[in-house]
This record gives sequence, structure tokens and C-alpha cells, in this order.
Amino acid sequence: MLIRNLADAQHQPVTASGAEKCRMAVMVGKDDGAPNFAVREIVVDPSGVTPRHSHDYEHEVVVLDGAGTFFFDGEERALKPGDVVYVPAGHEHQFRAAAQSPLRFLCVTPTSSNCGEAIPGT
Amino acid sequence: MLIRNLADAQHQPVTASGAEKCRMAVMVGKDDGAPNFAVREIVVDPSGVTPRHSHDYEHEVVVLDGAGTFFFDGEERALKPGDVVYVPAGHEHQFRAAAQSPLRFLCVTPTSSNCGEAIPGT
Repeated sequence: MLIRNLADAQHQPVTASGAEKCRMAVMVGKDDGAPNFAVREIVVDPSGVTPRHSHDYEHEVVVLDGAGTFFFDGEERALKPGDVVYVPAGHEHQFRAAAQSPLRFLCVTPTSSNCGEAIPGT
Repeated sequence: MLIRNLADAQHQPVTASGAEKCRMAVMVGKDDGAPNFAVREIVVDPSGVTPRHSHDYEHEVVVLDGAGTFFFDGEERALKPGDVVYVPAGHEHQFRAAAQSPLRFLCVTPTSSNCGEAIPGT
């Protein structure tokens, strides 16, 4: 059986354009045989950001700890632990860590896009 | 934008056969337009269990807090916060809360099965 703990996760820097001070660990994904979606842990260090982008697939996000903001289609809102965020396909979005705090969250994403292409980081 | 907090979740009793002292809240699912998968929070009260069953779709689970065990194909292992569990399709599985502690976890599941049927609780 496959059980991994978040405390043991090996994060890799997010290299996508626009990412700053941001790292990710795929907790369950394609390499484990997961056919439909991947659970990733993302850590954004203080003042860091995920890329501001949109794509043809959705995210479902759960904030684990820390503080920051969520940008969505021109609007920005504060995030706190326990927040669950739905990012539908086709909307510009970005996560930002507060200046004094990292932001740690789970991001669930499909393993392939609506056009059938493999999604990086799954 | 859709942001909900786990602290505000309205849990419903899990009525599937074999479930005991178990309740669930769909945090993001079909009713929100999610096309592929749903994030649910499941709380198993002390000594409670989820159904022991298998099905033709997978789960990806993240333990938030509490204590309990995970049964998988005849084997049982202790669970702790931060554990991420992959339950592939077609394997018998069950989550059990400890006698003195609830077990609270996120369970991500597809919104439709491999046969195209809607999955309950998504």
C-alpha cells in the first residue's frame, strides 16, 4: 500500500515562468499509476508567487497553513488555513505568500488536459 | 471566486452500507461545476469506520488530524496527520478511527466511474 507523509516530501523548485520562491512535491501522481488526478503539496516562501496563468483544466486547492492571497480574474482575496479554493479551467489565477509567512497548500489537478496532453508536475 | 473553509463545512452522515460514525462534506464537487474530481472532508468519530469496499475508481486521501488505521487488501496500518494514501481502483479498503480519537481526512475521488456512472457523494 502507498502511504507517504507530507513531512517527508521532497520538494522541487517550480520552474514554470512567473513562479518565484515556490516549490512542489507530487504526493500521488502519474508515476504511482494514478489515472485521473494528482495531489501535490506546494510551498510558497514569504513574498513568493505561483505563476499568474490560466489553462484548460481545473485545480482544487486546500490551504494547510501559512498566510497569503489568491488572485482570480483580477480580484484578490486573503487566504487562511482550511480554505478550499476551486479554480475552474480558463480563469487567470495566482497564489501569493504573505511577506512574513510562507503559504502551504495542496493542489489537486488532472493528470491530462482537456486536449489529452500530459500536465507537467503530476 | 469559490473559497470555502473546512471549519464551516456542513457534514452529512455517510449512509453507505458498513459506514459507522462517519460523516462527510463535499468541499468542491459536481454542484460547483467540477468536471473531473471532488474534494470531500470525511470525519470518522472515535471507533467509527468507513465502508469496507472496493470500486472501479481511485481515491487519494490526506489525513488532516486525529488517529486511526487504514485497511487495504487484508493489511492494516496506523495513520497519522500528514499521511497521504493512494487507494487504486479495485482494492478493498477501509478507514477506522482510533477508540479515543476521531480521524479527519480529505478524500479526492473522480466524479464519474470508469463505466461513466456518477459517483455518490461528489
